[in-house]
Amino acid sequence: MNVGIIANPHKKGARTTLINLCEALEKKKITWSLETETADIIGSPDGVDARTFGDSCDVVAVLGGDGTMLNASSKIGSVDIPVAGINIGTLGFLTTCTDTELDLFADAVASGNYQLIKRLQLRATITSNDGSRQYFRALNEITLTRGHTGRLVSLDAWVDGELLNHYRADGLIVSTATGSTAYSLSAGGPLIAPKADVYVITPICPHSLSNRSLVVSDSSVVELAPASDSSCPMLFTVDGRDVVDIKQGSRITVEQAGHALPLLRIADRTFFSTLRQKLGWG
Amino acid sequence: MNVGIIANPHKKGARTTLINLCEALEKKKITWSLETETADIIGSPDGVDARTFGDSCDVVAVLGGDGTMLNASSKIGSVDIPVAGINIGTLGFLTTCTDTELDLFADAVASGNYQLIKRLQLRATITSNDGSRQYFRALNEITLTRGHTGRLVSLDAWVDGELLNHYRADGLIVSTATGSTAYSLSAGGPLIAPKADVYVITPICPHSLSNRSLVVSDSSVVELAPASDSSCPMLFTVDGRDVVDIKQGSRITVEQAGHALPLLRIADRTFFSTLRQKLGWG
Amino acid sequence: MNVGIIANPHKKGARTTLINLCEALEKKKITWSLETETADIIGSPDGVDARTFGDSCDVVAVLGGDGTMLNASSKIGSVDIPVAGINIGTLGFLTTCTDTELDLFADAVASGNYQLIKRLQLRATITSNDGSRQYFRALNEITLTRGHTGRLVSLDAWVDGELLNHYRADGLIVSTATGSTAYSLSAGGPLIAPKADVYVITPICPHSLSNRSLVVSDSSVVELAPASDSSCPMLFTVDGRDVVDIKQGSRITVEQAGHALPLLRIADRTFFSTLRQKLGWG
Amino acid sequence: MNVGIIANPHKKGARTTLINLCEALEKKKITWSLETETADIIGSPDGVDARTFGDSCDVVAVLGGDGTMLNASSKIGSVDIPVAGINIGTLGFLTTCTDTELDLFADAVASGNYQLIKRLQLRATITSNDGSRQYFRALNEITLTRGHTGRLVSLDAWVDGELLNHYRADGLIVSTATGSTAYSLSAGGPLIAPKADVYVITPICPHSLSNRSLVVSDSSVVELAPASDSSCPMLFTVDGRDVVDIKQGSRITVEQAGHALPLLRIADRTFFSTLRQKLGWG
Repeated sequence: MNVGIIANPHKKGARTTLINLCEALEKKKITWSLETETADIIGSPDGVDARTFGDSCDVVAVLGGDGTMLNASSKIGSVDIPVAGINIGTLGFLTTCTDTELDLFADAVASGNYQLIKRLQLRATITSNDGSRQYFRALNEITLTRGHTGRLVSLDAWVDGELLNHYRADGLIVSTATGSTAYSLSAGGPLIAPKADVYVITPICPHSLSNRSLVVSDSSVVELAPASDSSCPMLFTVDGRDVVDIKQGSRITVEQAGHALPLLRIADRTFFSTLRQKLGWG
Repeated sequence: MNVGIIANPHKKGARTTLINLCEALEKKKITWSLETETADIIGSPDGVDARTFGDSCDVVAVLGGDGTMLNASSKIGSVDIPVAGINIGTLGFLTTCTDTELDLFADAVASGNYQLIKRLQLRATITSNDGSRQYFRALNEITLTRGHTGRLVSLDAWVDGELLNHYRADGLIVSTATGSTAYSLSAGGPLIAPKADVYVITPICPHSLSNRSLVVSDSSVVELAPASDSSCPMLFTVDGRDVVDIKQGSRITVEQAGHALPLLRIADRTFFSTLRQKLGWG
Repeated sequence: MNVGIIANPHKKGARTTLINLCEALEKKKITWSLETETADIIGSPDGVDARTFGDSCDVVAVLGGDGTMLNASSKIGSVDIPVAGINIGTLGFLTTCTDTELDLFADAVASGNYQLIKRLQLRATITSNDGSRQYFRALNEITLTRGHTGRLVSLDAWVDGELLNHYRADGLIVSTATGSTAYSLSAGGPLIAPKADVYVITPICPHSLSNRSLVVSDSSVVELAPASDSSCPMLFTVDGRDVVDIKQGSRITVEQAGHALPLLRIADRTFFSTLRQKLGWG
Repeated sequence: MNVGIIANPHKKGARTTLINLCEALEKKKITWSLETETADIIGSPDGVDARTFGDSCDVVAVLGGDGTMLNASSKIGSVDIPVAGINIGTLGFLTTCTDTELDLFADAVASGNYQLIKRLQLRATITSNDGSRQYFRALNEITLTRGHTGRLVSLDAWVDGELLNHYRADGLIVSTATGSTAYSLSAGGPLIAPKADVYVITPICPHSLSNRSLVVSDSSVVELAPASDSSCPMLFTVDGRDVVDIKQGSRITVEQAGHALPLLRIADRTFFSTLRQKLGWG
């Protein structure tokens, strides 16, 4: 058994949690590999590229919060390896366990006694004017928003080849169920239970007040493009991370990624109990 | 070929549209049966109970608007017969065609040249304190709301046996994709594309501002009950129609109905184009 | 110096806080009068009608939460006597101090060392078909909502004699700045700082998605009436308390009440710090 | 009598409306001055700087829509001269009359038979790290938003020296009553009647769902600053026009401008009737 570990070096308590995790794994005779930046935290020279985890590890443990998980998902690549979110300090929506439950985690890995929840991801393809393409994978959401301007942007959206709408807004979000608790929620979108096979298109500050979120089947293909009358600079982002300038004539295609993130679940923590706690319900 | 016809007698133009429809059918050698109230509109004594349409008709035509369709769906019962919405005057979300396209409709029926879009319905079961049960079928939504009181109500909701939340609110809506353009939308819920296999739980004026709509899989079972600390009168409604007083100790179970409404589609009118027109987009 | 005391008998800890308050006042040689129900809490036979506080007291202390304050304001009547909210357990928006700060309160009363914040109230007049009138005073809000029906209600609203809108909705709220943190907020209304001389009209689940809250000057007169095409039963409520059935032909006039509630302020607790704490900001 | 004219050269119909307006004025023996860009539309070499209108004109006519008015207000400067919005094609919120009512307008100017509605404006002062200052005047709103980043920004807001909140959001809008129908509305803010002496602070896509709009007195002073933990680039905008990069350490002060725009009103068009028409109510 080998566990790949990615920790957020900027998170307070990362070093301690990392050391504690290694001890907990050792007790169960589980070995581990550290991703390069993670190895740096404890001054180890043996860090490896997270891209290699797919070949060398049985489980990946991600130490930090939801943001760390978003980054880790990108670093690991599209490989079918269970990923566990070990939250330091606070509770996240992608939490497998917290930093006080490390033995529980090591136990689960050793015994194989855990569930896997498949989290749908999105593949976005930007096709530029000249026909060149860029590919992205999102666990939470992709956005097309206004750039360095004080004006609304104009953009068009299609679903399965049919025109959805011509939007005048700050932008548009295409979010997975996983991302429904993140930026899409701030923009007025609904919560989506993990088992619902859908994703959601949410306009950001639309000029037309009736431009609400639209929930579509996860088999749908969404296309976005700056409107032909649009002259404003636009930005494309993936999980709040990559920022690409989008030019007039470019087109973004969003669809279900072939690869869903297999999120490891051990505790009897339900999505709803996390919702209630994180959103301050009740 | 026989078409069952249900018209809204209170809709201006119902009589004319009814006569025109019969003429259009006659040209195609299609016969028709009129539901009792509909027969009254033209003074015909030959009206029949809409419950018999399942046995005697190939298609049911509903003349009016979306509200007429909701009522008609209830009158016909859970039988697998294609239903066409013929809108008088305005465009609805459940429109097959308008009153200016009657020949088009008769053509489609005669040739069988149409699509059927299955619209998910909900079955709600009220189980009372004494174990007695009442059953309801909703095409749009069911609600549990406050009755004759100026206070919030307290209610609990579960999804697939897991506690979703304890709500303090004006009430809660469980809506189908079809109902997502109706009351749920007014209460802040998202739009749902017809092909998305989900329904949505939307709180009405919740005390906690983070109590947003939740989209769940259409295989989920939702349960609602007045909270144990609740002393306020509550109402249960189905498609804005039936109104049942709910007592402390009652429990409402909501799940996918075995029967989905087969909505007849002939024109190349898409859900999105109807959205844009009805909601004043663009 | 004499302090009138009104406590919520249903609030856990009311008896203890009441006794402690009396002790704190005694230390400062301040006498007190208990309202009838409040006297019952400690088995005293000397309770008096709260209506008499205006003549006999220098300050009224209200023990409980915001709801207790709403009721107390109604019981005291429109007299210009400083009112202090002493919160038991939790913090309210109308809090002068908490049950752990009773000496601070007695001190402030004895020394006169406090501020008074005038809280605008609304006067509502229902004029019935037959010309008869009923008068109400609201510290938070008045509402006109649907009664025992599953349908939207239709109602008309005017501001200063000009038609504002014909609403199809669950109802309409007219709220003071004080009420802006209560029901109006749940219905989507804005927060209003105590010093802003306005009140706000908020539709409840309006059919038209662009029917937003409207903020008007506190010198405006708002009129509400069931629309002429309305057939549904409607309810009128005041501070979530009084519930009056409204018939077709009735008209409700809402304007600034002559009397503003003089809320006693001692601590350096600001409206914004209470907002942040109560609404879970930051 | 002399009327200063500013027209939007990019608006279809600008040339025709300009010529028609001059003819209407001529009939009433009213002279006119054209602003430089406006003179270009009809190839006249006699354009003057709009800054001179304060000295040379009795009324300024602005031909275009609300956007043209925002620009014109900036071009004219803070002078107390009545401004009339003459809408081309569509109706705006700042409309005095439309392009079909030019004689009505000329009549009103000649006879002095019109009302003036004073529209509050905001003055924003940016104080940089080095103590240098920049001043701006807004008729609609100022915003502090995220720049070229996919992340939320962190910013602090104070009202009258008291901390309002630490926001994590896409940004914050401070809007006048006039601006309440523009960007603030898209971000979820309330409508504000022109006579209400307030402005409104609206967060854009706040991370905390309870961060609602706050209405404050127009005598309040609002201060905004990037939070000390903020590392993201931010933008400051005025009426969707000026775009200034804001650095860590800068501070923005927003208060009522000394100058309110005197908007000329002739028709009996009310704010509410414009609302109903523009927002598609009823």
